[in-house]
Amino acid sequence: MTKQYLGAEKVNLKTENLKKEVIKILKKHGLSSSHAVISANALINAELVSAYGHGLSRLKMYCERLSKKVINPKPRIKIKKISQSISHVDADNCIGFVAADIAIKKAIQNAKKTGIGLVAVKNSGHYGLSGYYAEQAVKKNLITMIYTNAPPAIAPHGAKKSLFGTNPVCFGSPTGSKVPFILDTSMSMINRGKVRFAAKNNQKLPKGVALDKFGKPTTDAKKALYGVQLPIASFRGSGLAWMVDILSGVLTGGNHAGKVKDPFDDFSGPQNVGHLFITFKTNLFVKNYNSRIKDNIRTIKRLPKIKGVKEIMYPGQNKYKRFKMNLKKEIKISKILEKDLKILKN
Amino acid sequence: MTKQYLGAEKVNLKTENLKKEVIKILKKHGLSSSHAVISANALINAELVSAYGHGLSRLKMYCERLSKKVINPKPRIKIKKISQSISHVDADNCIGFVAADIAIKKAIQNAKKTGIGLVAVKNSGHYGLSGYYAEQAVKKNLITMIYTNAPPAIAPHGAKKSLFGTNPVCFGSPTGSKVPFILDTSMSMINRGKVRFAAKNNQKLPKGVALDKFGKPTTDAKKALYGVQLPIASFRGSGLAWMVDILSGVLTGGNHAGKVKDPFDDFSGPQNVGHLFITFKTNLFVKNYNSRIKDNIRTIKRLPKIKGVKEIMYPGQNKYKRFKMNLKKEIKISKILEKDLKILKN
Repeated sequence: MTKQYLGAEKVNLKTENLKKEVIKILKKHGLSSSHAVISANALINAELVSAYGHGLSRLKMYCERLSKKVINPKPRIKIKKISQSISHVDADNCIGFVAADIAIKKAIQNAKKTGIGLVAVKNSGHYGLSGYYAEQAVKKNLITMIYTNAPPAIAPHGAKKSLFGTNPVCFGSPTGSKVPFILDTSMSMINRGKVRFAAKNNQKLPKGVALDKFGKPTTDAKKALYGVQLPIASFRGSGLAWMVDILSGVLTGGNHAGKVKDPFDDFSGPQNVGHLFITFKTNLFVKNYNSRIKDNIRTIKRLPKIKGVKEIMYPGQNKYKRFKMNLKKEIKISKILEKDLKILKN
Repeated sequence: MTKQYLGAEKVNLKTENLKKEVIKILKKHGLSSSHAVISANALINAELVSAYGHGLSRLKMYCERLSKKVINPKPRIKIKKISQSISHVDADNCIGFVAADIAIKKAIQNAKKTGIGLVAVKNSGHYGLSGYYAEQAVKKNLITMIYTNAPPAIAPHGAKKSLFGTNPVCFGSPTGSKVPFILDTSMSMINRGKVRFAAKNNQKLPKGVALDKFGKPTTDAKKALYGVQLPIASFRGSGLAWMVDILSGVLTGGNHAGKVKDPFDDFSGPQNVGHLFITFKTNLFVKNYNSRIKDNIRTIKRLPKIKGVKEIMYPGQNKYKRFKMNLKKEIKISKILEKDLKILKN
């Protein structure tokens, strides 16, 4: 596993400068140095894997929430030990990146100690990409499953109003190679972050991924923001999104059933997002996990391919490629974002 | 939770007679009394929830595999304790129902003791419906996640050959009411059992769910059996199916990467299916889980509905309704199956 990938530690100077700027901005809005660094790392990582909807396009929103104290800049985060394997984090409405960082580290610690870790988080906020935290566990040679809920974006099967968030299912595993297996898949046909990014940049959405607020199909990203995103695979995707709401919200003490506030639109209080982190050792049941998964991936890659497909990719491989590519370049930011940064700095 | 639902204990006389017949047949093919009862309960339950592809249509296959000793009629099943929470079952190629029954009971026991249970199974076979075992954990007031792999049925994203099984993702939770939340969703557009059932009964498949062996779309169930079922949601479903293969196969010591044998077509050896059972207590992080999930479900049910939808159903509700309805009736079996039963008895 390359260090660069998992922590975004080594980036070119321009990117490093940008990160320093983000840290400065977050500190100016009340975050401690360490919380600002954790948050900036996550935001820059999102840019580097081209997940722009989870990157700097959110910085202004985070700053606004910090200013209005609906993200708590000076949280008193409590970690309750339930057992050697199980912990409960009350994140005191801190910035989600910090809550998730604490939780995955605790889940790693618990799994290293007992074979399995289960860590629930309440009173948290949007933490960016689940895969970013999965990578931390995989780096420590653990398998991980991560769930978080989010503000309403998908209509439950049969309903015409959105209630479930994009509610990603995330799974990570070592592969015996430097590129981890990281599945991080939202339960909506399109990520809310992408809809937001498209709306901000006046881009059209693909057909069949969203409805407007009247329940009609739309390709207008701005209209889709006020409407409903469609779940993947109809009732199956709806059921999976419901499962994620139960695991990350009902179980943890977080908000659920559509009560997680939209961080961009609703400043009436903290989001109280809930997360759940499951981690376990790869060698609990077999001694040769790494060679087994290498064999698994090799076998699948050797299958006859559909016309036009050069390589069968496992989840996380494309993201890794994007990261390696972006690492060599400067991070390009939009003019809107450039303006935001200038305002936020001063 | 009604006992009837969870164990199929109380059924009308005709059904009870049918179950006795199945037990007799399985014993005649070498199973012990207790293993025959466990298997017959699971098979009859599948009929009662109208999951015919997992019901008596498989009995002849099980008997053939028992006769040919590719299901071990007299297994020496080993349960290895990894920790208070974690166990590993070597099912010695017993009939899958028995392996899953042992594993879910162990997972329940472990969770009751420590808050969380993780049980892996190797050298098992097809166990029917994951939801059937999830119900057992939910009855004991636990949340559960269950994974199993299966013979090749879905092509990985980018491949034109099937390799993943239908690889269901199963999640169960208490609801504070008698009807449990049981999501049990295959990662293919259609269950292989349904394809098989359709093929056996000369029924057509819906469009867009399967390809024939040449990679062409087909609605002919018999052709689809030799072809490829399509994953849900393209690369997302493919990624989820891959995750299930890792969790239930690579991790457990079971077969994986397409090596699980088709129980109907391949008698060259045992299947060596792998399963993974995760269980945990509902009250680890909140004291009022039942009222929280009741509130969750109530809120979702109250959403404005799409035209024509009477009620927003949670996963498992429809199955429960079918079960209650079927319980009052006699189980209807096809003429083909009636013939099978006669032959198997003698």
